Amino acid sequence: MSNSGLNIIKIGGNIIDDEVLLDSFLEKFAALPGKKILVHGGGKIATRIATDLGIEAKMVEGRRITDEAMLRIVTMVYAGLTNKNIVAKLQVLQCDAIGLSGADGGTIKAIKRPVKDIDYGFVGDILHDSVNTASIKKFLEAGFVPVFSAITHNGLGQLLNTNADTIASALAVGLSSLYDTSLVYCFEKNGVLKDINDEQSVINSIRADEFLQLKEDGVIHDGMVPKLQNAFDAIQKGVRNVYIGHANNLHLFQQGQFGTCLTLK
Amino acid sequence: MSNSGLNIIKIGGNIIDDEVLLDSFLEKFAALPGKKILVHGGGKIATRIATDLGIEAKMVEGRRITDEAMLRIVTMVYAGLTNKNIVAKLQVLQCDAIGLSGADGGTIKAIKRPVKDIDYGFVGDILHDSVNTASIKKFLEAGFVPVFSAITHNGLGQLLNTNADTIASALAVGLSSLYDTSLVYCFEKNGVLKDINDEQSVINSIRADEFLQLKEDGVIHDGMVPKLQNAFDAIQKGVRNVYIGHANNLHLFQQGQFGTCLTLK
Repeated sequence: MSNSGLNIIKIGGNIIDDEVLLDSFLEKFAALPGKKILVHGGGKIATRIATDLGIEAKMVEGRRITDEAMLRIVTMVYAGLTNKNIVAKLQVLQCDAIGLSGADGGTIKAIKRPVKDIDYGFVGDILHDSVNTASIKKFLEAGFVPVFSAITHNGLGQLLNTNADTIASALAVGLSSLYDTSLVYCFEKNGVLKDINDEQSVINSIRADEFLQLKEDGVIHDGMVPKLQNAFDAIQKGVRNVYIGHANNLHLFQQGQFGTCLTLK
Repeated sequence: MSNSGLNIIKIGGNIIDDEVLLDSFLEKFAALPGKKILVHGGGKIATRIATDLGIEAKMVEGRRITDEAMLRIVTMVYAGLTNKNIVAKLQVLQCDAIGLSGADGGTIKAIKRPVKDIDYGFVGDILHDSVNTASIKKFLEAGFVPVFSAITHNGLGQLLNTNADTIASALAVGLSSLYDTSLVYCFEKNGVLKDINDEQSVINSIRADEFLQLKEDGVIHDGMVPKLQNAFDAIQKGVRNVYIGHANNLHLFQQGQFGTCLTLK
C-alpha cells in the first residue's frame, strides 16, 4: 500500500434528484483535495422515463428487476443523462472529471446475477478481483477524477445494472491495494444515530467490536445493519475507514468531522 | 508534429442503427493497429424515443433543433445507450475503449450556436482551439481508445448537441499538432464516385486542385461539396489525409485501399 490517499465518495438518488442539493454537494466534492472518485446512484428519473414510455418498473425486495427495456433506460439515464451532467458541472468547478461505466477502460466487470428464486434480469454482481485497478490507476495518476455511474459490463459485451453501494465498495477494496483508501457513503442522515429521531446524536466512530455490541443492544437496526456490515467487510478487506454521513456535510470531511467513522480497531 | 500516427474514424447513424453492420465495423476498427479514436453520430433511436415520449423532433434545413427536452434525450441516447454499448462491444475485442463526451476530461468545448434567423437551441459550435489536446493525449498515451459521442459542453455546465462530423474534424485538426493524424469518414458509399450510380467508379485520390476541377465539371455535387470542402479545410489546418469510404471496407485501410483519399498535393 502506498501512502498516497484516495477518497471514494458515493451519493444516492436523493441527491441526484434535487438539483440544489446536487450542486451544493458537487462544490464540496470538487473542493476535496487529493485523489478521489465519485460513484453515483440512479434516482427517480429512470423510473419516470420508464413510466412515460409505458414500461413498468418492477421491484422485488427493494431491488429493481432489470429487463431489456429497463436496462436500456438505466443505461441512458445513469451513464448518459445523470453522469454527463455531473461531469459538466464538475468541470466548471475545476475538477477534471471523466464519466465512466464499468465498461469504460474495462474498469469493473460483473456477472449477470444467477437466477435462483427470482430472475433479476440484467443485474450485475461484482466478483472478487473484478476491479481493474491498473486501468483506474491510469486515470487517477493522470489527474482525472473518475465519476462512476451504476452500470457495469460482463466483459462479453453485455451491460449490467449494478448497485452503486456495491460499486463504491468494490472500488474501495480493489484500490486499497494501491492507495490508502477511504470510502464515504453520503446519505440523508448526519451519521449513525444513537437516537433515530435526534440528528444531533451522531456516533462519531464505531469499531468492529463496538458494532457487534450496538447491534446486540438494538441501537443499530433495520436497514443500517447490512449497510454497516458491508462497510466492515470492506474494512476487513483493506479499506482504511468507511464514513457515513450527510451529503451536506462533506466540507467537514477534511477536518475529521464528517458523520460516523467506521474503523477496524 | 511527432511521427506517431493517429487515425480518427467517424461513423454515422446508418451504422449505429444496424447491429450487424455495427458489429462488423467494430471488429475492423478494433483490428486497426496504432493510436485511434472513434467518433459516432446518433442514429434514429433518439428520434424514436422522443416520439415515444411525445416530444416532437424538429428539423430545420437538415439540422435538429435541440430544445431542452431533446437535449436530455440525445444526451441519454448518444452519450449513454449508444456510447456505452459500443464501448462494451469494443472491450470484448481487446480494444481498451473509453466512452467520452466533450465534457469528460474537458476534452471538447463548444459554444451554444448564436441565434440569427433560426434558434437551433442547445446546439454546440466548436471554435478554433477548443480541443483539449493535452487531455486527449493522456488517454492515448495510456493506451486507451477514446470513443466520442456527439455531445460537448460549453465549460459553464451546459451540455450541447454537436455534429459528429464537426467533432471528428475538430479532433483531427487539434491533434495534428501532436500526431501525424488522418481522418476517416465512413459513409454508405465506397468513396467519392465518378458516377453516382456505379459503386465501382471510386476516385482513389483527390488533390485540393483536382477538387476544384471536379466541382467545376459537376462530377462532385450536392451534399458531397460541403463534405469535401470541410475535409480539405481540415487538411489545410494540418491533418495529413482525409479518407472517405464505406464502413464495410475499413479492413482495407491499412493496405491503402480504402475509399477516396484526399490530399493537399
